[in-house]
Amino acid sequence: MASQASRSARADARPTPWPMEWDGDSLRIVDQTRLPEEERVLRLRDAEEVAEAIAVMRVRGAPAIGIAAAYGVALAALRAHERGEDARAAALAAAAHLRSTRPTAVNLAAGLDRRAAQARGGARAAALIAAAVALHDEDREQSRRLIGHGVALLAPGTRVLTHCHTGPLATGGGGTALGVVIAGHRDGRVAFVWVDETRPRLQGARITALELRREGVPFALIADGAAAGIIARGEVDQVWVGADRVARNGDVVNKVGTYGLALACAAHRVPLHVAFPRSTFDPALARGGDCPIEERAGAEVLQVAGTAVAPAGTEARNPAFDVTPAPLVTAWVTDRGIARDPSQLA
Amino acid sequence: MASQASRSARADARPTPWPMEWDGDSLRIVDQTRLPEEERVLRLRDAEEVAEAIAVMRVRGAPAIGIAAAYGVALAALRAHERGEDARAAALAAAAHLRSTRPTAVNLAAGLDRRAAQARGGARAAALIAAAVALHDEDREQSRRLIGHGVALLAPGTRVLTHCHTGPLATGGGGTALGVVIAGHRDGRVAFVWVDETRPRLQGARITALELRREGVPFALIADGAAAGIIARGEVDQVWVGADRVARNGDVVNKVGTYGLALACAAHRVPLHVAFPRSTFDPALARGGDCPIEERAGAEVLQVAGTAVAPAGTEARNPAFDVTPAPLVTAWVTDRGIARDPSQLA
Repeated sequence: MASQASRSARADARPTPWPMEWDGDSLRIVDQTRLPEEERVLRLRDAEEVAEAIAVMRVRGAPAIGIAAAYGVALAALRAHERGEDARAAALAAAAHLRSTRPTAVNLAAGLDRRAAQARGGARAAALIAAAVALHDEDREQSRRLIGHGVALLAPGTRVLTHCHTGPLATGGGGTALGVVIAGHRDGRVAFVWVDETRPRLQGARITALELRREGVPFALIADGAAAGIIARGEVDQVWVGADRVARNGDVVNKVGTYGLALACAAHRVPLHVAFPRSTFDPALARGGDCPIEERAGAEVLQVAGTAVAPAGTEARNPAFDVTPAPLVTAWVTDRGIARDPSQLA
Repeated sequence: MASQASRSARADARPTPWPMEWDGDSLRIVDQTRLPEEERVLRLRDAEEVAEAIAVMRVRGAPAIGIAAAYGVALAALRAHERGEDARAAALAAAAHLRSTRPTAVNLAAGLDRRAAQARGGARAAALIAAAVALHDEDREQSRRLIGHGVALLAPGTRVLTHCHTGPLATGGGGTALGVVIAGHRDGRVAFVWVDETRPRLQGARITALELRREGVPFALIADGAAAGIIARGEVDQVWVGADRVARNGDVVNKVGTYGLALACAAHRVPLHVAFPRSTFDPALARGGDCPIEERAGAEVLQVAGTAVAPAGTEARNPAFDVTPAPLVTAWVTDRGIARDPSQLA
């Protein structure tokens, strides 16, 4: 599927979309698997290409994949309409396929369920496109509000530690946890950021580092295993992370490694702030342990930047997420405000 | 220094030493920076070459670097003697230089202090060589005894998780924590091993995986950040790690990432067993927080297998070790037996 999309997705001379842009006929994205070396722009013209981009993480970040998938459903309907085929059936099939690409992120599932309902209701391709654009706009507005609430938690001079990547590229454009950190730096509240490299996909090293450099925020990259010791030495005031799904009881399903960080925060009374659009909250999920955890290919662990790091034939396990129990979370920060207790999320 | 040693250290057609072998005139080592791709053997002929091998981790593991350094002092005296120079002065200078290569491991410092005292007492090169060989033999015997004690802690079917590398290659030949695990597998007590890849140097992916494959032990490699979630899911019965220095109060200074693992063990009541030769215990160190923590080059984080993973100009911090407080340790396993309380280490 990857090679198919590489063939059909076209490079593009217009300005780079951060992270994606609807151009009236296709979804333009910056290929996050090529960052930071290359700002490669892809033009995705159908749902298959969008599904491939989500599966291999050309588009990633829970809010961003939800938006991309909504565009994917619209593209399926649009292409079917152009071929004189049944746009409604194409949209429903695309929604089912896109839903299977990343099982953990709730934004993806929720957005697709809405799109599928619209398609079943007989919405035309134009209506599905308008709905995807509206979701994209709504996400940017949610980021703006979330950041406004989150910055209030940062005292001047705060030293933050963050895991994975939760900046503008992970959303429709504004960011969640890293959006708060960047805004906090502009306000003089964030003095320094520790960035977990975030193995196996190195989103911290590749993408968080890129966004912090663009914004001029002072930071240092660390191996994931170094975070607990740095917290123990008193060099971190707050930890900020995003979420891929938040359960009804406040448990946070997020990038693998978040739970270990949360234990270190608890041991040293460092606040753990989890930032996400309200749509990441899943009231149907009673607790984090009930969430399906995506198991990705072992090759992501066995190779780094295309080079094998383990002996040939080695097996690897690669859970993409883990569960942080609600009692370890200090605050849940959403576009609706700051929750100090999970009951305030409902 | 690296290029100098690469020029002068010779490749060698004899069987690969695991990890090192005194051949009467030089120290033969397998270059651990080239594993698992290549079993490159180096013949180290003077103290400078030994110091370079320790600094860049061609020889690594606290017991192994202590032994290699003892050979290094002997080589300094031997080469000075051959040139008609003052062997005693050369040995003292070599001990001081070797001591500076890795500041955290106590075996290195203790072994060198003994060698320096011998040199000051007027020992000839031959005596220093004999002392290094004796230290090497003693380490193998300590590993044998340590493993005998440690295996008793493993119930049949135990699923172990381990961090970094503590097998035969990290010692004079027998191993510490991983030596226990390998022996436990031969006895039918170890069913499966989870191996942290151990960024930034990937000792788990490169070397632990190699030794477990050679021994036929079933294992899976994981990203370091995945360990806490796997422990939380109940898939780990015991965690086994080594130590670079153990303080008088039982605090364990070990490879960065150990402390985070220890917090996960405590949260889920998984026993944390720390295995080390008694010489790793440092009664002069009151607590782990007083131990100097080696800060290695940021390039180890910024590059993986020679490929840059972060944007150009990114800064990184790279503490090589962290401190696990004694209350998080279930048992300290040494060649003298099993201590359940740090007072039993004295």
